[in-house]
Amino acid sequence: MLNKPLMPVAEALAQICEMLPLLPAEQCDVTEGLGRHLAQDVVAEITHPAAHISAMDGYAVAASSGLNSGTIYNVIGEAAAGNPFSGRIGQGEAIRIFTGAYLCAGADTILIQEEIETLSAGHITITKTAQAGQFVRPEGLDFTAGNCLLPAGKCLTARDITLAALAGCKTIQVRRRPQIGILSSGDELVSPGERPQIGQLINSNSLFLHQLVTLSGGTAVDFGIIRDKKGALIKAVEAAGPLDLLVTTGGASVGDHDHIVSDIMAADGGQIAFWKIAMRPGKPLIFGKIGNTALLGLPGNPVSAGVCGLVFLYPALQSMLGDQLTPRHANAVLATPLPANDRRQDYLRAYFVTQDDGSIVVTPAPQQDSSMLRTFAKADCLIVRPPYAPEASDGTIVPILPFPPGI
Amino acid sequence: MLNKPLMPVAEALAQICEMLPLLPAEQCDVTEGLGRHLAQDVVAEITHPAAHISAMDGYAVAASSGLNSGTIYNVIGEAAAGNPFSGRIGQGEAIRIFTGAYLCAGADTILIQEEIETLSAGHITITKTAQAGQFVRPEGLDFTAGNCLLPAGKCLTARDITLAALAGCKTIQVRRRPQIGILSSGDELVSPGERPQIGQLINSNSLFLHQLVTLSGGTAVDFGIIRDKKGALIKAVEAAGPLDLLVTTGGASVGDHDHIVSDIMAADGGQIAFWKIAMRPGKPLIFGKIGNTALLGLPGNPVSAGVCGLVFLYPALQSMLGDQLTPRHANAVLATPLPANDRRQDYLRAYFVTQDDGSIVVTPAPQQDSSMLRTFAKADCLIVRPPYAPEASDGTIVPILPFPPGI
Repeated sequence: MLNKPLMPVAEALAQICEMLPLLPAEQCDVTEGLGRHLAQDVVAEITHPAAHISAMDGYAVAASSGLNSGTIYNVIGEAAAGNPFSGRIGQGEAIRIFTGAYLCAGADTILIQEEIETLSAGHITITKTAQAGQFVRPEGLDFTAGNCLLPAGKCLTARDITLAALAGCKTIQVRRRPQIGILSSGDELVSPGERPQIGQLINSNSLFLHQLVTLSGGTAVDFGIIRDKKGALIKAVEAAGPLDLLVTTGGASVGDHDHIVSDIMAADGGQIAFWKIAMRPGKPLIFGKIGNTALLGLPGNPVSAGVCGLVFLYPALQSMLGDQLTPRHANAVLATPLPANDRRQDYLRAYFVTQDDGSIVVTPAPQQDSSMLRTFAKADCLIVRPPYAPEASDGTIVPILPFPPGI
Repeated sequence: MLNKPLMPVAEALAQICEMLPLLPAEQCDVTEGLGRHLAQDVVAEITHPAAHISAMDGYAVAASSGLNSGTIYNVIGEAAAGNPFSGRIGQGEAIRIFTGAYLCAGADTILIQEEIETLSAGHITITKTAQAGQFVRPEGLDFTAGNCLLPAGKCLTARDITLAALAGCKTIQVRRRPQIGILSSGDELVSPGERPQIGQLINSNSLFLHQLVTLSGGTAVDFGIIRDKKGALIKAVEAAGPLDLLVTTGGASVGDHDHIVSDIMAADGGQIAFWKIAMRPGKPLIFGKIGNTALLGLPGNPVSAGVCGLVFLYPALQSMLGDQLTPRHANAVLATPLPANDRRQDYLRAYFVTQDDGSIVVTPAPQQDSSMLRTFAKADCLIVRPPYAPEASDGTIVPILPFPPGI
């Protein structure tokens, strides 16, 4: 097993995404849609503006009445937002109108109140020549009923659901939230809030993965800690309800105390799709099935678990949610040279630095040990170094993996 | 009033932030800290790693025993993560050790199992000369008890709370969530989910502001829609509980149907700090007090309300939460020339465009009417055009306001 070639990251990720299902659609109230992923396009149910409306407070007239300074109008009614004037104006007639109100029949131009003089009750004149059609927002300026406003696959922002609500959508079709089990393996682990005794370590991995799943639009189901004991994983899976994916951390290596792989092999229907990935941190990464449950086994080191969560779990969730739109990679300019890389794809914790000219460059943290969670928390991004990447001088453009919002 | 000079955006924002209180600190479980704002530095309660630990599966030895290929060791015990070896090794002795386990007394170097040969039960030899101290993670490599890990004012990410949990923090001190009332004013408004009749409009503003407040770490309290009627705002405020800020949309202008300003002036202790801002969209913007409640009155047009929410409400929330760290502005390169600007600061909805060389430029949406919510939803950022900004050619670096995550 040790001499087998390591699997490239992209190939491993493609296999994971292919084996996980696209989740079914469900209905969601538009006001509850934040962060959900559209299963269908959002199509406008109504037109906005619903009619020609006034963009200002003033008077609505027909341009054919004349718009020159000194023209006199007879005011025959009033229209406010929510209270349209149901009549029609003819030549020489006007209605008082307020911002957002519908233009009445016959009207096509707004005279703003700052450029009007009242002659007598019911009679006004313009003090400045107006333009035909001015200050009118035409019907459908924003969108028309039937327009596609938001594409399927989009992860909905606050602005998106606001737009859908304005367009008359009461409910939208979104992907069901993936149900993701989270389990940590290790005799040394205690839960956050417990004080570790000699030899013990606080299990921070489950907390990180829980937040990652939630922020990605999934539902995290926490199964706590299992001990380094043969059969512990099988028992935990039997006790769990149906899951779309079980994510474990720790116990994924080949040591005598690592039982994730052997438990998978011992379980009915257990299978391992792959096991070792050409990446750093995070070589021992398992993907497979235990019983009917898909399993992603991440390494136990906090930084390795975090990086593998970003590199595999996050895009796997996006894939289950049908999200083809959220970009994951970006580019940045190196501030410091990097040596040539070996056969493993490196993910270097790195910081953004703003230069004197305002441009932003990226520099790796000086130490990259995978036990150093502090540099992971402080990092602004991960620099991606492909296998066998040649030496890179400062100024080179390199691919980076930004941290998703909130993560 | 109309001829008074308009207030600059920065001055208005500074006044708002100054008049709103810094919220008190409260205790929060570290596992619940996502998106909260630190009121105190997070200080490590324990050291990580807590002792020198092994970075690999293998054997722990003393370098002074010799590390040349062929050196023979007597294996006297075992240490695994969570199960330390309590004895001490002497010259020529080793313990079996697994990743994450503490080194025992006397050990300072790890021989990895791939470079070991077992001679007989209890005796091993090295097949490759080792380096003194190799594969050891020293105590405190990540952090030491007492280290400041996260600064006061920081908005906590998933990685931050994971780090705090690993560092033994059970609770953290965060700012209380601001309680923000949201109220829309307008005879024409109906709520999302209702079908608008002739002259009516769906009130999308409250939904947007609700999400903005929530995503910024506040608690939104929705007071629905009030009608364009004298006294309606006063009544609504009397019925509301204590709030840190009440945000209204609509009714902020000078029309006969706009009652926000007159209601504030009519209320006991009502005061208006300012009213008209040199910006576009969003000139009529109120900040003041009604009774004991601070009030921010935004315009009613969906895009104006949205932009003013980003320009004033979002930083006001950050200020109340003591957040000096989250950057709000950035720079981008213009893809298309812009004309000289007038006296109002413009916020242009704009798109990012990736060029052939991979660089990203920014281009404004061709139409900027403030009723067009669709371009607001589609936009990647707002280009900020200061008052009297001169013509800008393509290639010019311009300030932009990115949309905060999820918004």
